[in-house]
Amino acid sequence: MSGFQPVDSLNSPRFVGVPTFMRLPQAQPGDELDVAIIGVPCDSGSPFRAGSRFGPNAVRQMSLMLRPISPYRDHINVFEALRIADAGDANVVPGYLMESLEMAEAALSAIAGQGIVPLALGGDHSISLPAIRAVAKRHGPVSLVHFDSHADTWDSYFGGKRHSAGTPFRRATEEGILDPSTSIQIGMRGSLFRPDDVSQSTALGFQVIDTDAALALGPQALAERIAARVGGNPVYITYDLDFVDPAFAPGVGTPEAGGPTAREALAILRAMTPMTIVGCDVVETNPGFDGPGQITALLAATVALELLSLIAVSR
Amino acid sequence: MSGFQPVDSLNSPRFVGVPTFMRLPQAQPGDELDVAIIGVPCDSGSPFRAGSRFGPNAVRQMSLMLRPISPYRDHINVFEALRIADAGDANVVPGYLMESLEMAEAALSAIAGQGIVPLALGGDHSISLPAIRAVAKRHGPVSLVHFDSHADTWDSYFGGKRHSAGTPFRRATEEGILDPSTSIQIGMRGSLFRPDDVSQSTALGFQVIDTDAALALGPQALAERIAARVGGNPVYITYDLDFVDPAFAPGVGTPEAGGPTAREALAILRAMTPMTIVGCDVVETNPGFDGPGQITALLAATVALELLSLIAVSR
Amino acid sequence: MSGFQPVDSLNSPRFVGVPTFMRLPQAQPGDELDVAIIGVPCDSGSPFRAGSRFGPNAVRQMSLMLRPISPYRDHINVFEALRIADAGDANVVPGYLMESLEMAEAALSAIAGQGIVPLALGGDHSISLPAIRAVAKRHGPVSLVHFDSHADTWDSYFGGKRHSAGTPFRRATEEGILDPSTSIQIGMRGSLFRPDDVSQSTALGFQVIDTDAALALGPQALAERIAARVGGNPVYITYDLDFVDPAFAPGVGTPEAGGPTAREALAILRAMTPMTIVGCDVVETNPGFDGPGQITALLAATVALELLSLIAVSR
Amino acid sequence: MSGFQPVDSLNSPRFVGVPTFMRLPQAQPGDELDVAIIGVPCDSGSPFRAGSRFGPNAVRQMSLMLRPISPYRDHINVFEALRIADAGDANVVPGYLMESLEMAEAALSAIAGQGIVPLALGGDHSISLPAIRAVAKRHGPVSLVHFDSHADTWDSYFGGKRHSAGTPFRRATEEGILDPSTSIQIGMRGSLFRPDDVSQSTALGFQVIDTDAALALGPQALAERIAARVGGNPVYITYDLDFVDPAFAPGVGTPEAGGPTAREALAILRAMTPMTIVGCDVVETNPGFDGPGQITALLAATVALELLSLIAVSR
Amino acid sequence: MSGFQPVDSLNSPRFVGVPTFMRLPQAQPGDELDVAIIGVPCDSGSPFRAGSRFGPNAVRQMSLMLRPISPYRDHINVFEALRIADAGDANVVPGYLMESLEMAEAALSAIAGQGIVPLALGGDHSISLPAIRAVAKRHGPVSLVHFDSHADTWDSYFGGKRHSAGTPFRRATEEGILDPSTSIQIGMRGSLFRPDDVSQSTALGFQVIDTDAALALGPQALAERIAARVGGNPVYITYDLDFVDPAFAPGVGTPEAGGPTAREALAILRAMTPMTIVGCDVVETNPGFDGPGQITALLAATVALELLSLIAVSR
Amino acid sequence: MSGFQPVDSLNSPRFVGVPTFMRLPQAQPGDELDVAIIGVPCDSGSPFRAGSRFGPNAVRQMSLMLRPISPYRDHINVFEALRIADAGDANVVPGYLMESLEMAEAALSAIAGQGIVPLALGGDHSISLPAIRAVAKRHGPVSLVHFDSHADTWDSYFGGKRHSAGTPFRRATEEGILDPSTSIQIGMRGSLFRPDDVSQSTALGFQVIDTDAALALGPQALAERIAARVGGNPVYITYDLDFVDPAFAPGVGTPEAGGPTAREALAILRAMTPMTIVGCDVVETNPGFDGPGQITALLAATVALELLSLIAVSR
Repeated sequence: MSGFQPVDSLNSPRFVGVPTFMRLPQAQPGDELDVAIIGVPCDSGSPFRAGSRFGPNAVRQMSLMLRPISPYRDHINVFEALRIADAGDANVVPGYLMESLEMAEAALSAIAGQGIVPLALGGDHSISLPAIRAVAKRHGPVSLVHFDSHADTWDSYFGGKRHSAGTPFRRATEEGILDPSTSIQIGMRGSLFRPDDVSQSTALGFQVIDTDAALALGPQALAERIAARVGGNPVYITYDLDFVDPAFAPGVGTPEAGGPTAREALAILRAMTPMTIVGCDVVETNPGFDGPGQITALLAATVALELLSLIAVSR
Repeated sequence: MSGFQPVDSLNSPRFVGVPTFMRLPQAQPGDELDVAIIGVPCDSGSPFRAGSRFGPNAVRQMSLMLRPISPYRDHINVFEALRIADAGDANVVPGYLMESLEMAEAALSAIAGQGIVPLALGGDHSISLPAIRAVAKRHGPVSLVHFDSHADTWDSYFGGKRHSAGTPFRRATEEGILDPSTSIQIGMRGSLFRPDDVSQSTALGFQVIDTDAALALGPQALAERIAARVGGNPVYITYDLDFVDPAFAPGVGTPEAGGPTAREALAILRAMTPMTIVGCDVVETNPGFDGPGQITALLAATVALELLSLIAVSR
Repeated sequence: MSGFQPVDSLNSPRFVGVPTFMRLPQAQPGDELDVAIIGVPCDSGSPFRAGSRFGPNAVRQMSLMLRPISPYRDHINVFEALRIADAGDANVVPGYLMESLEMAEAALSAIAGQGIVPLALGGDHSISLPAIRAVAKRHGPVSLVHFDSHADTWDSYFGGKRHSAGTPFRRATEEGILDPSTSIQIGMRGSLFRPDDVSQSTALGFQVIDTDAALALGPQALAERIAARVGGNPVYITYDLDFVDPAFAPGVGTPEAGGPTAREALAILRAMTPMTIVGCDVVETNPGFDGPGQITALLAATVALELLSLIAVSR
Repeated sequence: MSGFQPVDSLNSPRFVGVPTFMRLPQAQPGDELDVAIIGVPCDSGSPFRAGSRFGPNAVRQMSLMLRPISPYRDHINVFEALRIADAGDANVVPGYLMESLEMAEAALSAIAGQGIVPLALGGDHSISLPAIRAVAKRHGPVSLVHFDSHADTWDSYFGGKRHSAGTPFRRATEEGILDPSTSIQIGMRGSLFRPDDVSQSTALGFQVIDTDAALALGPQALAERIAARVGGNPVYITYDLDFVDPAFAPGVGTPEAGGPTAREALAILRAMTPMTIVGCDVVETNPGFDGPGQITALLAATVALELLSLIAVSR
Repeated sequence: MSGFQPVDSLNSPRFVGVPTFMRLPQAQPGDELDVAIIGVPCDSGSPFRAGSRFGPNAVRQMSLMLRPISPYRDHINVFEALRIADAGDANVVPGYLMESLEMAEAALSAIAGQGIVPLALGGDHSISLPAIRAVAKRHGPVSLVHFDSHADTWDSYFGGKRHSAGTPFRRATEEGILDPSTSIQIGMRGSLFRPDDVSQSTALGFQVIDTDAALALGPQALAERIAARVGGNPVYITYDLDFVDPAFAPGVGTPEAGGPTAREALAILRAMTPMTIVGCDVVETNPGFDGPGQITALLAATVALELLSLIAVSR
Repeated sequence: MSGFQPVDSLNSPRFVGVPTFMRLPQAQPGDELDVAIIGVPCDSGSPFRAGSRFGPNAVRQMSLMLRPISPYRDHINVFEALRIADAGDANVVPGYLMESLEMAEAALSAIAGQGIVPLALGGDHSISLPAIRAVAKRHGPVSLVHFDSHADTWDSYFGGKRHSAGTPFRRATEEGILDPSTSIQIGMRGSLFRPDDVSQSTALGFQVIDTDAALALGPQALAERIAARVGGNPVYITYDLDFVDPAFAPGVGTPEAGGPTAREALAILRAMTPMTIVGCDVVETNPGFDGPGQITALLAATVALELLSLIAVSR
């Protein structure tokens, strides 16, 4: 068993202590880890609702509900399979997106550079760019597996700004650190700004499966599509909580009505087969819009645990 | 392209400016319009939870999330297809339902009388009666397409009152402005006051398809039923947000557990085929019960946009 | 018609008066009843979120929305079929779980001892133990029908404590008042503390059907399984609101992402066939985490009404 | 000691049981009472925020915090001094203000007609008119002691409506059931619709002491003014929670910034000297705008208890 | 009387229509105005809580409560004395503070350049810099009257950033557009980052009166101090809502416990004597942290109305 | 300067990282400290509202707003004067008050036994007993300085239970670890259960100064009374947030209307003169009832910082 074990919630109640992700130890310099949880509390890329700067700690708080063993992955205990710690948060400068992305990249590179898989907790979706930069420095261009109701491949936003929560995957494509021809975007839906909102993704080379198509396929077939698409390439998985219906994730930056249920969404993750995951993120948790039940943060934490389980079985 | 275009949310963030529906221009006297959005902030007909007087502005606020192009209708841009403006609100007198309904009828008649299709934002369900009166003055008796978990065909309420959110469609039938033999009510469910709660609708001549039956049919077959029922008659569509499950619309006046998901509900609207829509409404949004995520208002706005799209393809 | 009739909400609005369950009369000494609604406002067994002490009155408040007739059970009027009253709350001592369970047992025994079926409103899940004790004193060991995302058959919690919301059904099994070989647990899901979290239930003799299996079966087949399992034994039905997805029940003690919808959950109850119900409960409603729409409390009340309908058709 | 005693909260926790005002017995026909607590859940007179229909039960819920003995009145125990019970709510018809006021008058007259002092819990301020009518029928014209940030002596509202939360005291004056020459209004402040908003009260004959003047006088001098004004006449006391600053009462219909603190407000009540109180009310509690702490409802309940204490020492 | 009149809330209820500030007309090109209300929904300068981008519309919503006549200024009707309209919002780019400040400056200069006094609704405190730039272009260096619990004269923030909500008044001093020797800061309190947090303001030349000193002086003496300090210079008044205690303004970016009450705060404004006001702002309203009562937004609106009244009597 | 310094919030925004109290280091074994912050998340003693188990982390979260230097104590920097770290939380067993108090005593004794001053964050008021036990073991009987609206010297609660949030100071007196003859209770107010609610404290030997008396004295005279009362004895200071009015602390277990403002309350703390403080606590913060602004938690954190400042100047 790994030396990195969470506090046992059968002995000490979950509400005891300063909450780290799943009550894991905080990472110390020199820790040899497989995965590091890192918050990136940047919401300077949010085009509508700000506040996902409080996302990482909201996810930590609700991750207290989670337990280490997955009945969906042959009862694997992720903390036996992987050495995981909570690496705290990247620093940012609110209101200065460019600098914040640079600081996030530095913090993520320090993790990825040691061969540790970063699991980033957002923050808004702009943080995927520095995360991909960080892992690509070590592993080369990545294949993207992208769950979201929006494609986030805009060329620019508000007066030509090239960085925001709406542009990271076009930027990453342009920078050559993301290979769209082996990447897949799942869950797009809802009304569009321009006729080519989604088709601009396919024009870039992404495979796009919208919400209706994804649910028509079902989890197994969709997982096969994903596996076929990414093959043996290094994979970066990004999960925007607005992938699910707002009933299941009211606390997000840009909710989109008419999405999958949480059960449908988790079934897809649980059906995914081993792949070479080099980094991942769960973004757009915005606790101020989540209500007292904090169900968005709980779902975000659950998604993060599914990602850890997938990493564990991929070893 | 129509001269009535929304502010472009790729240039100016959605939170900038006084929110009109989808950031459309406010209607000016003499505007030649196809559709007018009009709030009817009357909640004097609410038998349980008051507060839908704040519904129209809550829907406007969340309509900021919407975009003009529908991927579900061959990428039609509703603002190219139709001239639409936000006509503000009808005046009302809180606590005086009869007078409020008269004032609403006057405001709606001013719109319908010019051949403009009113899309009314409630307010409680009592406002459908003045809206139907307004359009029937111009177009004759209408066929009703009614989404709701309750049939709202009570004879009277509380001490014999003949007007409330529970009676509009019986009144309209009695007034001869609604033809039940070509009308359809969809989504009824839950416990009943009287054994004939729902059957009183069928006794009046309505076709009633309850929630379970509607979902068993599926969107395509249901859309065909609707089309067959209304035929080429002038149609009034009324949408009570309690049609969906309270998880998707907690902010309504009389929530009813066990309804469709938002995705199931939107699929029905998106499957509906062109018809002669002369008026429509989206009612019972009650933001005080909606939580900080305001998902009911977002869904109400999305439903309104689907109605606009349906009107657009019906031209 | 029974002498125990609710206030008619078509005559007097639901918000008028001190709210009892469904506006029923409060039970008086000597009342001859079939079923008694009794609150058990004990949350001393809650391992994470406290506050279900306010659950019974929250359920009463939202039960105002309900109506007496079920379209799912041949339009039975439960208040014609059964004499039902609101028996108020059992007393408890917050912070003293053992004493609270004893007080709850006394109150429940006073009901069950008269042959009245108690329908207990929690409170946390620890209250099922005193309720089962109370009914078993009169009827002998019961068969359990248990809806929940957790099996609640832990041996102990926090430093060896044998009573909490996580242990009642192991205790009842040990006490010989619950027969696991004719009992069934439905809905388990999510991550586990120990590899045998769920299998410990099967080791005790329970049949366990997890969420995915339950939904794969569908309501009819599942209802048949339940009926086959409990046969003609005296049955105790316990319903933890975290059985459904947190979107439908955010206001619970330990939410678990990825559950059934409310519609799926209610369909199971409505498919259940007559059985010898000697007691039942609806637990874990925690209004402080429910948001202003109070949809968890509404669902809890709706579940309670379905249980009443099932009792009614079982007579 | 009176036979009407509250449940002892040192023996049974406050959250146990269906909440009546201060856990008092519910009034039964034939009870010989000194004071009856009666909810009047009418918000059809609210010109801005609806929802005070839920006020009476919110006040009941927070009245659970109160205890029977007043250290401010020589440790009088109000339930030894007075026979008090909770008489439930008057019936109303939402959306029909005139009928609601009639129903309220009937319910209040049934109380006042027996010589019982009604303490009405609102509901919006329109309910003071039927309450004054009820007591004046028995006791003749009353002297009004009125705490409020608004004078509520408008002639009419919205299109000439003569009844609303803004008009009751002009109506009562016109009906000859309120004697302005022995009445006093305290606490007016804030911006005005018309130059004569407040002076119209003085024109009617009321003495008006605005917030600044009231606080400059201090509780003792102000109490003397009140006593001097009402003399030995039958007195009706009406208390609108917006008298205090919105920080202390956010949950009201028409909050007005810049008012007294709760301590300043309670000090005035505690300084008031015995008078012939024939009726009183505490109005405008609107729990939907009060936040989870429900401090407005707590203050409303505390004000009600101070009124009971004043009645007790006036006997 | 000016042609710019608000909708009369005695005729049409306040909740009717799209809310502008106090229901004023929206400014049209060419309007000859004395004062323009302009929202500046920039929160990119917020060091802690984001979300004041929703501040301007929250203030507009609660300004519906206000009325045109001030009993504190000899019953002046501000809309008779001044031509005022709602000029909508300045555009901004979230996450790009520098560009947002430039866009705000352009919008404010367009107003100030016509000799119209801008009353800016924030947004965070960084917006005062572009506002002062705008008015100084027309009127020369201004004297600042600054209400706040923080001095906001930091040299830099987070890694040397010179623009944020904590630096505007040092920047303005450096730019020579603000004359500290005739300026005054009122209300500083609470713990400090550096020993010279406040003294750095006095070092720059500001007069600083902390919360305790301000309240010890009382409104009249404090108003005299202000008048003496600014003399006949052009004055810019900036009002950060965290000047008052968090009980009165919970919805702000950086609340500071232990401040004045709203009544104390308004009394200061009402005591201020005529001066040459060339611009003003009310900032840091953050509705997401304000609770359902929205008392911060109401206070912000009330402060804005007091500023308008002061401008009116200064003409 | 001490080696225990908080993260500098001028360099890294307050929302970055897992929140400890004021961003201090977490205590490590062997740390030589002057003061240890320790959470005691026990709410099993709460007689009404549960949920203060979430209090310690809520206070930590809002303590991010605080800065190290006090302008009220000659600009002392508490982290230069004292070595302070965040020692995490004591373990507890929810629903088992006796065991929880034992566990809290063990954790507090480990701190106090090293001569470190514990500053405990509650949790409910029952935790003061184990804290006083812990410090008395090292320092002998303590003098109590107690801020609260209730005296908490009941003999027993609910069926004779001798431990709850209402009994700690009688128990401590009986145990001989608290000397009432040198102790003082400040702030009692509100209605009473029994005529001797407060006088039972004086009967035990405490000096009791109620809210009105405390505010009449003013901060300086009250501070002198406190100093005179405790003399040179070892002092334990306990601060129940319900000392202040609910407007300033809505998020408490048993709010009591009519208390001091936060400014009045902080002025008392700031006037207190050096004394031999051996332990202290700030209790009853209950974030679930606090609203989105979390002003109770902010005030609790501010009170804790004032206590640290007082300890610093007492060295």
